[in-house]
Amino acid sequence: MRPTAFLFDLDGTLVDSVYQHVLAWSEALASEGIQLSIWRIHRRIGMSGGLLMNMLLRETGIALDPARLERIGRHHAASYRRRAAEIRPLPGARELLAHLTDAKIPWAIATSSRLETARPTLEVLGVDPERATVITRDDVPRAKPDPDLFLVAAERVGVDIESSRVVGDSVWDMLAARHARALGIGLLSGGYGEEELERAGAYRVFADPAALLHHLDELGVRAG
Amino acid sequence: MRPTAFLFDLDGTLVDSVYQHVLAWSEALASEGIQLSIWRIHRRIGMSGGLLMNMLLRETGIALDPARLERIGRHHAASYRRRAAEIRPLPGARELLAHLTDAKIPWAIATSSRLETARPTLEVLGVDPERATVITRDDVPRAKPDPDLFLVAAERVGVDIESSRVVGDSVWDMLAARHARALGIGLLSGGYGEEELERAGAYRVFADPAALLHHLDELGVRAG
Repeated sequence: MRPTAFLFDLDGTLVDSVYQHVLAWSEALASEGIQLSIWRIHRRIGMSGGLLMNMLLRETGIALDPARLERIGRHHAASYRRRAAEIRPLPGARELLAHLTDAKIPWAIATSSRLETARPTLEVLGVDPERATVITRDDVPRAKPDPDLFLVAAERVGVDIESSRVVGDSVWDMLAARHARALGIGLLSGGYGEEELERAGAYRVFADPAALLHHLDELGVRAG
Repeated sequence: MRPTAFLFDLDGTLVDSVYQHVLAWSEALASEGIQLSIWRIHRRIGMSGGLLMNMLLRETGIALDPARLERIGRHHAASYRRRAAEIRPLPGARELLAHLTDAKIPWAIATSSRLETARPTLEVLGVDPERATVITRDDVPRAKPDPDLFLVAAERVGVDIESSRVVGDSVWDMLAARHARALGIGLLSGGYGEEELERAGAYRVFADPAALLHHLDELGVRAG
């Protein structure tokens, strides 16, 4: 069996932070007078912030200049940091990472957020981005659904992307996994439905990191 | 064609309030030391508060005495009211109700919330519960997914339940519609996926009230 690696999304996959991100984007857009239904924002969480705003604005028909986009991005980051105190790791997330480390199975975190926004979330998880392999929007030209984040993550941990497992909660993770030719594993913990993740190409869907850890041997993974 | 009526759920169907309810429940449970993943709360929104707590607690294995359940319920209501300032009607909601009124098609609102919690949400929508037909948890022995709320709503507007349309954003609405033998129409605006609503029995699924209004003639509805 070839060596494998686990490449994890962060928000909604390891940390229970999706709903706070959603309301922070809603607040940031409202501060510029843009009213968007909250479910539409939820369905776009996990893709790059720039792309998220493009897609949302296309639906509203509003055109924004770069200065206003920049202000919305900063407002989202500040609003999210204010909500960070109520954020918790998802059940089994720490145990899953510890198990992989013990079993010498390489893992990395690859998030569409900038490190500035990811840092409080990583702290909640107890992951030090100076010691673990963490790839953020700052490291790649294009975030999800482009495959760059996962490609760089696989390269850093020294495992072929095609034998890696990409674990994420959103259809953007599954789409990026397909682009990268990795095996996509979906989690329900970000609030997407099972059928949406399967339709986007998830090979298997589990409730959360605890359920994934419980079924690890069904994913063709052996300790290294 | 027999006369028909539209029986609407409130949160996530006419008003963009689901995500605030979700975080208010999360806060209320955390105040009693109960940590539950937020997506699990989201998937239970729309059913009666008591049933919601039963289902959530079954998953955590925690048993709560009535006094503590009462405290959690009160904490949720207070936390939700604090968030009410950021709540907006969903696109097309007011226009849809106005259109039905103009066309002399009876409509009612049937919500699993108590009137105390529903009141600020109804205000956002511009609906006066003293003038419109609004059925709440206070009016029935059992809330959704039992059919009682929709059965009483149909009776109040004087239309046979079997020729009524039940419009909701959650699988609990679709399940209650089935129990009541009404036609269930799903909306994505509460954050459920299309496949989940179809699997729960939705005859059609639209994005939000604006899309439903646009396609009203596809639902076999004639002005009265």
